Amino acid sequence: MADMTETMGPSTLREERSKTQFDVEAMKLVWAGSAAHKKVADKMKVLVANDPVFEKSSRPRLDRKSLYKNSLRKAAHAWKLIQDNHLTEEEASSLRHYIDEPSYNDLHWGMFIPAIKGQATEEQQKKWLPQAYKMSIIGCYAQTELGHGSNVQGLETQAVFDPSTDEFVLNSPTLTSTKWWPGGLGKASTHCVTYARLITDGKDYGIHGLSSLFVSPFELAFIAPIRSLDDHSPLPGITVGDIGVKFGNGGYNTMDNGFLRFDHVRIPRDNMLMKLASVTREGKYVKSGQPKQIGYGAMVYVRTTIVVDASNMLSRAVTIATRYSAVRRQFGTEKGKPETQVIEYATQQSRLFPLIASTYAFRFVGEWMNSLYADVLARIEANDFSTLPEVHACTSGLKSITTSITADGIEECRKLCGGHGYACNSGLPELYAAYVPACTYEGDNTILLFQVARFLMKALSQVGSGKKPTGTAAYLGNIQKLATENCKITQGREWLSYDVIIEAFQARAARLAGACALKLSKAPNAEAAFEEFATDLAEAARAHCQLIIVEKFVEKMRSQIPGRGVAEILEVLCYVYALDLVRINAADFLSTGYLTSKQISLAKDQLRSCFKKIRPNAVALVDAFDHTDHYLSSILGRYDGDVYPNLYKDAQEEPLNDSVVTEGYAAYIRPVLKNQLRQSKL
Amino acid sequence: MADMTETMGPSTLREERSKTQFDVEAMKLVWAGSAAHKKVADKMKVLVANDPVFEKSSRPRLDRKSLYKNSLRKAAHAWKLIQDNHLTEEEASSLRHYIDEPSYNDLHWGMFIPAIKGQATEEQQKKWLPQAYKMSIIGCYAQTELGHGSNVQGLETQAVFDPSTDEFVLNSPTLTSTKWWPGGLGKASTHCVTYARLITDGKDYGIHGLSSLFVSPFELAFIAPIRSLDDHSPLPGITVGDIGVKFGNGGYNTMDNGFLRFDHVRIPRDNMLMKLASVTREGKYVKSGQPKQIGYGAMVYVRTTIVVDASNMLSRAVTIATRYSAVRRQFGTEKGKPETQVIEYATQQSRLFPLIASTYAFRFVGEWMNSLYADVLARIEANDFSTLPEVHACTSGLKSITTSITADGIEECRKLCGGHGYACNSGLPELYAAYVPACTYEGDNTILLFQVARFLMKALSQVGSGKKPTGTAAYLGNIQKLATENCKITQGREWLSYDVIIEAFQARAARLAGACALKLSKAPNAEAAFEEFATDLAEAARAHCQLIIVEKFVEKMRSQIPGRGVAEILEVLCYVYALDLVRINAADFLSTGYLTSKQISLAKDQLRSCFKKIRPNAVALVDAFDHTDHYLSSILGRYDGDVYPNLYKDAQEEPLNDSVVTEGYAAYIRPVLKNQLRQSKL
Ligand SMILES: Cc1cc2nc3c(=O)[nH]c(=O)nc-3n(C[C@H](O)[C@H](O)[C@H](O)COP(=O)(O)OP(=O)(O)OC[C@H]3O[C@@H](n4cnc5c(N)ncnc54)[C@H](O)[C@@H]3O)c2cc1C
Ligand SMILES: Cc1cc2nc3c(=O)[nH]c(=O)nc-3n(C[C@H](O)[C@H](O)[C@H](O)COP(=O)(O)OP(=O)(O)OC[C@H]3O[C@@H](n4cnc5c(N)ncnc54)[C@H](O)[C@@H]3O)c2cc1C
Ligand SMILES: [Ca+2]
Repeated sequence: MADMTETMGPSTLREERSKTQFDVEAMKLVWAGSAAHKKVADKMKVLVANDPVFEKSSRPRLDRKSLYKNSLRKAAHAWKLIQDNHLTEEEASSLRHYIDEPSYNDLHWGMFIPAIKGQATEEQQKKWLPQAYKMSIIGCYAQTELGHGSNVQGLETQAVFDPSTDEFVLNSPTLTSTKWWPGGLGKASTHCVTYARLITDGKDYGIHGLSSLFVSPFELAFIAPIRSLDDHSPLPGITVGDIGVKFGNGGYNTMDNGFLRFDHVRIPRDNMLMKLASVTREGKYVKSGQPKQIGYGAMVYVRTTIVVDASNMLSRAVTIATRYSAVRRQFGTEKGKPETQVIEYATQQSRLFPLIASTYAFRFVGEWMNSLYADVLARIEANDFSTLPEVHACTSGLKSITTSITADGIEECRKLCGGHGYACNSGLPELYAAYVPACTYEGDNTILLFQVARFLMKALSQVGSGKKPTGTAAYLGNIQKLATENCKITQGREWLSYDVIIEAFQARAARLAGACALKLSKAPNAEAAFEEFATDLAEAARAHCQLIIVEKFVEKMRSQIPGRGVAEILEVLCYVYALDLVRINAADFLSTGYLTSKQISLAKDQLRSCFKKIRPNAVALVDAFDHTDHYLSSILGRYDGDVYPNLYKDAQEEPLNDSVVTEGYAAYIRPVLKNQLRQSKL
Repeated sequence: MADMTETMGPSTLREERSKTQFDVEAMKLVWAGSAAHKKVADKMKVLVANDPVFEKSSRPRLDRKSLYKNSLRKAAHAWKLIQDNHLTEEEASSLRHYIDEPSYNDLHWGMFIPAIKGQATEEQQKKWLPQAYKMSIIGCYAQTELGHGSNVQGLETQAVFDPSTDEFVLNSPTLTSTKWWPGGLGKASTHCVTYARLITDGKDYGIHGLSSLFVSPFELAFIAPIRSLDDHSPLPGITVGDIGVKFGNGGYNTMDNGFLRFDHVRIPRDNMLMKLASVTREGKYVKSGQPKQIGYGAMVYVRTTIVVDASNMLSRAVTIATRYSAVRRQFGTEKGKPETQVIEYATQQSRLFPLIASTYAFRFVGEWMNSLYADVLARIEANDFSTLPEVHACTSGLKSITTSITADGIEECRKLCGGHGYACNSGLPELYAAYVPACTYEGDNTILLFQVARFLMKALSQVGSGKKPTGTAAYLGNIQKLATENCKITQGREWLSYDVIIEAFQARAARLAGACALKLSKAPNAEAAFEEFATDLAEAARAHCQLIIVEKFVEKMRSQIPGRGVAEILEVLCYVYALDLVRINAADFLSTGYLTSKQISLAKDQLRSCFKKIRPNAVALVDAFDHTDHYLSSILGRYDGDVYPNLYKDAQEEPLNDSVVTEGYAAYIRPVLKNQLRQSKL
């Protein structure tokens, strides 16, 4: 099968790379955030890629049991590496990231330990954290129930204090109170942090003062041992197991999302995490006096991680789609020449390039959230809770919109790869399946937008009474001007100005929020009106969050960005990000009167010229994410572009090809062909 | 675990059904299209649901080999039933539909046989069709190659005529010429219809006169035997196998999409399908004189099937999401009362109800396409090809937009189910994974829109020169008026008029197309301009297709629709369908100046009131699709609403729960917990 086309992929990508107009190495540093981060990442990604235990391309072929067992093996091997090599916490977490397989570690390190840190007293932390850090216990986070998710107040699990023994009795009184979904619970964990209605002193304290799932810190958490440390069997009174198969072949099925029922399980009183509130020996419920807000730090942290993760996952998908769009050729044959690369087509560019831009945008907003987190911690330390409502709103909103765009973006990248995107060896189906629950967990994305909307409405009403909004909401202080002065540009190139862009996004966000506030203020019942106009409120929230992302991208651009051509191409990406949002949300800009249709059309023209500037740099822009082939796990996205021979090779691994004549032939095909069905037993 | 909540699902759905304001039985008839169709469907769906061989809920748990073998078993059993019960063609096809599992049958009956009918001479048909009809051969449709899909002209497989033996020599000269993707090819088929470059008489005739994949009928098709009818082993010179795992756990993995290489495989000259062109004994290529257009009938047929199928698949997803949204409760607790059904929330309604409306809309446009198909056949018979360009454009476009909306809609329904939607037992992950390739096969959805756009540009230029467009494009004859007169309504309720709606969609479509035509006419190079403005052209095409769907819905409404309240609620759905499109595409209406933002806002108000009318009928509207629980294969979508106990029950079936202590414990968990990793072999 000698042919030229076999080598077309590699030579095409080499040629693409030769056209690059910026310093890719410098861009890698921008993407990594710092030389120190880059060093850790570089070390860990290579460690993982070179270790055969972490092989993952066969994942979609494994049945659930093998998949799960293999993921336990990886977790154990990772822990061994971490210990043997004395990895730092950052290195360990980077290692787990590059292993790229959902496992109990995500919950143990990402939820169980942070929950203890956030809600246990110092003394309790001393008891539990060392065990958790050395993994002599494995913990998970058991909040959601079969019948209750978003509304944490509705949880039914009970923790009844029994003063006669100084214990809590954990109980699942109904079927719907069964804990359901917690990762790591199904098969691996020995302990969980769980949430339950506190019942003591003859009173049901509920889950206490919570507004809704993951949107305010919790008070009534308990540590429950669930499996024996001797032989791992469930402890008395505990019914526990895996809830079953989830979306995708490999995907999230390496994780043991579980169910759990308590049948009057007794735990010591001290297993209640008592930083914020406690129950005394006599059964009195007492608030600790610690401000409830101290729990907010953990929430900001988790959301920051999620936003950074969104940029990572989207970066993988766009790497695959960009490289393959350069390799793939369809149509436009001139006699004797190869066909046109599909990346040349305008529709392909208009679907793909804004996703490259979003990837960078999410990266920079994630970076900013990291600094926000540090700021929040420092303020909480100093008992300054003034920024929390604003921080809570903006991080809720950013979680919601970055995860939604990322999930949709991965799927769009898959479609951009045509038929081959549908095969698991493109890496995209599994990436999507494993990623998309990020739209649901840590707060349903729709519900999170309402958090933003409520904040915006409150901020606007305060503006009315003279209070100045701060942080990401500061622009609302300027609403008078933003609501009345329209965009003045008359020439397309005027769009390429950060001030013009930011003002447009501020005006849109302020006007949409203002219109909602007006509707609510006219309504007799504010709560009913909030429900009635929920769709508009969600739109206003989205506009606010997009503004933040645009602003943070611009802030980044206004900082010092070294490297030949790096700032220049990032500037183009920044405009692509913003102008594509103008295009998509043109209705907002038009209906609020801020832009004319002529101005929208000028924006689209600019967008098209930006695409032309991206085109020669597209492959280099995704190379700058510096993903290993192992991490991408995609034949279409291979660094070397050698797509076709490897697709062919991979097909030979399919278990169905183990036998030339298929297993079911004698029983099920031959009788059909030979008209012998009547005689055969099916 | 006695509790009230366990029975909440069933009693809630009973209450929902009691609120219905229309005759559900009459609506079932509307949905089915006719009493005769309904009778067939009713019989077949029950036959399938009651037959244990067709069990499918365990599908996501099977490994690929078991999955495939099980699907062969179902295919054989189905064939047995069809023969034993002497089922008619309609019944057999309905039976296969309700079995709901991709298999070689789809290609054998859906592509192989139609290709022979469309492209073989009468004599050839007499040779092949009887064998195919009695399944003494199994055929598939092998067009796509590893390196070539959308652009059929680029196919590399060769058919070289050898006059010395009166044979064609089929050959795969390069790796990229390997046939790739054909369903049923990997393991099951004995024959394929394949496409190859004809080389005879010293000349490469290419694939001949084709513009692109599935967008015009083919000429150069060959029947190639690929497996022995004795023992099913691949014939000499044939390399064939399955290409590997695809998106989703079960999903499309019951299908053996395959690869195929020909190494100088000889087939008789008569295996070339010669209705349109032939090669003589001497090797002369001769056109048959039959108009090439006769192949168009098959294309219209396939697309009609696809659109009807879109309405089916979307109807399943909305059934699940609607029933579960009624059962699921979150927030809004009044003391002692159950929480609010999530279907009450405005955002849930605004995401779900337009999808219910789309389901009906696609059904009616599919019904209309069926009659269009009959019309095309009659015209072709009478040598009247005048309507073909218009029919080709509108069916291409309808395939594109209905499959895109359906795929996205299924995924939206999944998200509307929160966490539980992510479990395979919701039925939604597998429905999506199995459905989404419809956006890619039978023509990539983006490329298909260009077909529409090209037609629109041509039609407009003909209008310029006085020619009247017909059929779905007739409104373009009125472009002068449509482009200048804006919408006049001033009151919200004026939106509830079919004339107002249709005029709005006509004006938008005409203006968008007109704007594109203007840009193209100004450009020095029309083809380059087409590429430059491809995104706008695709938008114009989409607007044209949405207009068609709206028009056909209105046409349906203007027909006689019997049954208490049926026409009334369908009218509401029709407005929901149209007004939601106005909302989503507000930018088009605003930027073309047809609507003011005030009018858009009135449309949104009307949409909200329509939702209020849908609300009490929502469950009944999906009941009218009359899906069996077997067909839905969804615990969340169960007819009886008994969701929670069945989720619990299903989890117990998960293979990971076979052992209480997980298999990997000793090897991979215990060493972690006991700090014994150094000693253990991983
Ligand atoms: C892969 C995965 C992993 C998970 N891991 C964990 C874990 O480790 N620990 C844990 O405790 N939980 C976990 N969960 C559960 C997860 O946190 C919940 O599924 C999530 O919070 C959503 O809640 P829900 O499922 O109850 O959705 P629901 O709230 O039931 O949502 C259903 C629909 O109702 C809508 N809706 C609900 N309330 C409102 C409202 N007030 N207004 C408008 N619309 C509304 C939603 O938008 C959605 O469309 C996990 C879930 C998944 C899928
Ligand atoms: C599940 C499944 C079943 C299938 N079954 C069969 C079968 O039975 N028999 C068979 O022969 N084939 C089959 N196929 C193959 C299928 O028909 C092709 O995958 C499909 O036609 C798309 O072509 P492609 O994969 O080459 O995509 P490509 O054309 O390579 O598309 C890649 C990207 O390029 C873009 N693009 C390409 N050309 C242009 C252009 N001119 N302008 C703008 N954008 C462009 C596309 O929009 C897309 O985004 C199947 C595929 C799948 C996924
Ligand atoms: Ca599997």
